[in-house]
Amino acid sequence: MIRFLVVYNQPTDVKAFEQHYREVHIPLTKKLAGLRRYTLSRNIAPIRGGEPYYLVAELDWDNRDALRQAFQSPEGQATAADVANLAKICPGVRSMIYELEEVLE
Amino acid sequence: MIRFLVVYNQPTDVKAFEQHYREVHIPLTKKLAGLRRYTLSRNIAPIRGGEPYYLVAELDWDNRDALRQAFQSPEGQATAADVANLAKICPGVRSMIYELEEVLE
Repeated sequence: MIRFLVVYNQPTDVKAFEQHYREVHIPLTKKLAGLRRYTLSRNIAPIRGGEPYYLVAELDWDNRDALRQAFQSPEGQATAADVANLAKICPGVRSMIYELEEVLE
Repeated sequence: MIRFLVVYNQPTDVKAFEQHYREVHIPLTKKLAGLRRYTLSRNIAPIRGGEPYYLVAELDWDNRDALRQAFQSPEGQATAADVANLAKICPGVRSMIYELEEVLE
C-alpha cells in the first residue's frame, strides 16, 4: 500500500478554504483512478509539538505505479493543480508519498 | 476509527534514533491495548512543502475511549515517556489525534 499524505496548516481564510475543499477538491480527488481509501481528519487534538494541523488528508493506492498512473491522467493533473489553488489560502501545505510498513502483521 | 499521528523530522543522530525506535519504541508501542493498526513510512518522497518528514507513524484505535484507556495504562505511560527520549535526538516531533472521516464510503 502506498499513501499520499497532505497536511494543511491553519488557512488564512477558513471559510473559503472549507468551501473550496468540499465543493471542488473532494469531487476532483474522488475521480482519481485506483484510489482505495481517502480519509480526512476530524476534531484534531494536539499532543506534542504545538498547534496541530488544520487538516490531514490521506489517500491510499495499491502501489506506486497505480498512484503514478492516477496523477498522470487528466483527472490527476487537475487535482494536483487544484492544490495550488488551496495553497493560496493555506500557505503551509506539505505533502509526501510513502509506502506503508505494517508493524503489527 | 481514531488515529494517533506522529511525524518526526530528520534526527540529529540517525543511527541512535533508528536503534532506539526499533529496539525500544516499537516493542513498547506494540503492547498498547486495543491497537488495531500501526504503520510506519518507508521510502518517503517529497511532493510539496520542501523536505519530507523522516518518519511518519500512524496508530489506529476503534474509538477515542479505547485510545484513552491504552495511554492511561502503565504500557501507555511508558510509551508516551519514551517519545521524550526520542525527541532528544529528533527535535521536530509533532503528534496529534483525530477521528478518521472516510470520504469514499
